[in-house]
Amino acid sequence: MISDVMRKNVENGSQIRAMFQMGKEMAKEFGEENVYDFSLGNPYTPVPEEFAQAVRDCLDEYSSTELHGYTDNRGYEDVRQAMADNLNKRFGSHYTADNIAMTVGAASGLNAILKTLLNPGEEVIVLCPYFTEYRNYIANYSGVLVEVKCDDNLMPDIADLQAKITAKTKCVIVNTPNNPSGAIYTDEVMKQMAATLEAKQKEFGTDIYIISDEPYRELVYDGAKNPFVPDYYKNTIVGYSFSKSMSIPGERMGYLAIGSDVADFEMMMAAVSTAIRILGPVNAPSLIQKAVAKCLDAQTDVGYYDENRKLLYGSLTEMGYECIKPQGAFYLMVKTPIEEAQFVELARNKYHILVVGTGSFGAPGYVRIAYCCSREKIERSLPAFENMAKELGL
Amino acid sequence: MISDVMRKNVENGSQIRAMFQMGKEMAKEFGEENVYDFSLGNPYTPVPEEFAQAVRDCLDEYSSTELHGYTDNRGYEDVRQAMADNLNKRFGSHYTADNIAMTVGAASGLNAILKTLLNPGEEVIVLCPYFTEYRNYIANYSGVLVEVKCDDNLMPDIADLQAKITAKTKCVIVNTPNNPSGAIYTDEVMKQMAATLEAKQKEFGTDIYIISDEPYRELVYDGAKNPFVPDYYKNTIVGYSFSKSMSIPGERMGYLAIGSDVADFEMMMAAVSTAIRILGPVNAPSLIQKAVAKCLDAQTDVGYYDENRKLLYGSLTEMGYECIKPQGAFYLMVKTPIEEAQFVELARNKYHILVVGTGSFGAPGYVRIAYCCSREKIERSLPAFENMAKELGL
Repeated sequence: MISDVMRKNVENGSQIRAMFQMGKEMAKEFGEENVYDFSLGNPYTPVPEEFAQAVRDCLDEYSSTELHGYTDNRGYEDVRQAMADNLNKRFGSHYTADNIAMTVGAASGLNAILKTLLNPGEEVIVLCPYFTEYRNYIANYSGVLVEVKCDDNLMPDIADLQAKITAKTKCVIVNTPNNPSGAIYTDEVMKQMAATLEAKQKEFGTDIYIISDEPYRELVYDGAKNPFVPDYYKNTIVGYSFSKSMSIPGERMGYLAIGSDVADFEMMMAAVSTAIRILGPVNAPSLIQKAVAKCLDAQTDVGYYDENRKLLYGSLTEMGYECIKPQGAFYLMVKTPIEEAQFVELARNKYHILVVGTGSFGAPGYVRIAYCCSREKIERSLPAFENMAKELGL
Repeated sequence: MISDVMRKNVENGSQIRAMFQMGKEMAKEFGEENVYDFSLGNPYTPVPEEFAQAVRDCLDEYSSTELHGYTDNRGYEDVRQAMADNLNKRFGSHYTADNIAMTVGAASGLNAILKTLLNPGEEVIVLCPYFTEYRNYIANYSGVLVEVKCDDNLMPDIADLQAKITAKTKCVIVNTPNNPSGAIYTDEVMKQMAATLEAKQKEFGTDIYIISDEPYRELVYDGAKNPFVPDYYKNTIVGYSFSKSMSIPGERMGYLAIGSDVADFEMMMAAVSTAIRILGPVNAPSLIQKAVAKCLDAQTDVGYYDENRKLLYGSLTEMGYECIKPQGAFYLMVKTPIEEAQFVELARNKYHILVVGTGSFGAPGYVRIAYCCSREKIERSLPAFENMAKELGL
């Protein structure tokens, strides 16, 4: 018999992964060309050529025991320094190798920092709408998830944030560009958020951390500027992933960046290193650490996602759907003119369009369309969206 | 402020990792050639040529999005099938892809299965001497570690095992070849263990699982035969790692193998898949999954470790040290003629020999010497061991 919690977890499943599985089965039944699966945020664009070259160069340059051996739990020192240098160049920050811990993707980084921070029962604030997996990460360490509402533009409601912070608040997870909304938090919002947190730290005499989850940092459109969160708030821990920027999600490569002036920094970094070890990763995969460090400025074809975004947003808006225009990431949120679950079912069963309802993201009444897919799939799906719009009387 | 548990964890530290750091500092002070660091089980022998070739071949054969994209949380299906086929060929087992979950090394595999199995307060039996990290893995899921004594040959004391099993016993971690003792559990011991567990399952009406942690499976000497644990006991979950067999510990590649006849198999495999996702790994690194699957029979130079073993065991025994002759893995346990901590300090401070006391492995009164190092380091260290033996009057 497995544990009670995991039994429930399996029974409830991941809506997104379940939808993805269903899409595969439907493709078998109806033909791949007749199913429009927009459920999973699985990068579609090719890996930059520089990355494959970097892997080959690593095989040539390093001895096999150095390239494939255990690294420090935080990663190779030169790799960590390369991450620090790159951040400093781009954002004027002052990181060194000592501020960086390489992680098995952003997800392992979030787990490591939450294990580091949370006493059981302490509160983690998430800003609606938010990536549903945060629920699991927080539950892993017996933390309590506290939702903060969003306004009509899907921006965090600062008054609600103020109301929700208590003496037990340990951290706030910020995710801009946002999954699922594609929103980029404005300068104004970030300033208000920082001021609120500073005031509450004083009021309660506590440290309140921002965990800035930034897998979509490089995916911004229309020249929008994504805020660099540590510039607004000192107690910020940055979590990054190369999954989207380099289209290498399977390789599980990311990092945590923790400034030396973050409260309890030295103990925190030592604990992160310990957490990476005892949670099982031990170190981020060694060859890929060296490879990404060799091509930090390489990027996948972000323009491709931008064209997808324009096509999908433009077409759906024209058909009468009410859409939130994304400024970043590769998701589009569409308001459901009928009940969310009904819309998801109708889209799937009648039109073979697979999308995820955002109720579990803390924003009921919308669906999320992941447009990290081929242009052709979007084009093929448009008549189905059109017919559905007609049925819904849009 | 970080969490109380992690603060304590950092303060207590990992004895092994601390010793390893100390070794580096001493090498700076006294010269690398005058320090004999045997603290860390870090594979020394080169990676087999087939592995580097397999990585290159993968880059040529697969599209970048397939090779570096998300895989199923359990890994690529063809990779899982390759693991199953290889196990079946070697051990006559009947695994398929559905019985395998690829993991970020054995450590992540152990974490995933312990998260899957444990309700808070349930008991995990470890057999002295045992790998100290099990403590942390069990504590991660609020399990209770229960030690079972060993006999004078460092084999599990079956009478004590019988006495320690309760209605709350969820699993027993078996590790043969053993870290730190190098022992291989005998056919007799495995049969007695299995009979004991079968009887206790009936007595309590519970499922009791063996988690067989097998990173050293391929490292056996003198033609010894390591038991294939599922042959002895049905409710066995095998955890494997390629870290030692292919000398690629930094790449973090391993798997769990769970037979279809293991109690609660289907729910368990679904939960393992979920655990791999929500604990952060998401999937084992994709390129390396494909690469190991291409060269499953490749091995590092096990003969080199064997020569190290013979040299070290022979020399120390001749000097008068009482040693447990290892049959597998790459560790040698030496009885300390003085108090364990005193011996560790004397060896380090006066003779620059770094070894780890095995009190924290549940076997006080010994030190562990990791001989996964260059022959030359062992040769260089022998006069220091000799002088120490003289001082100790051996």
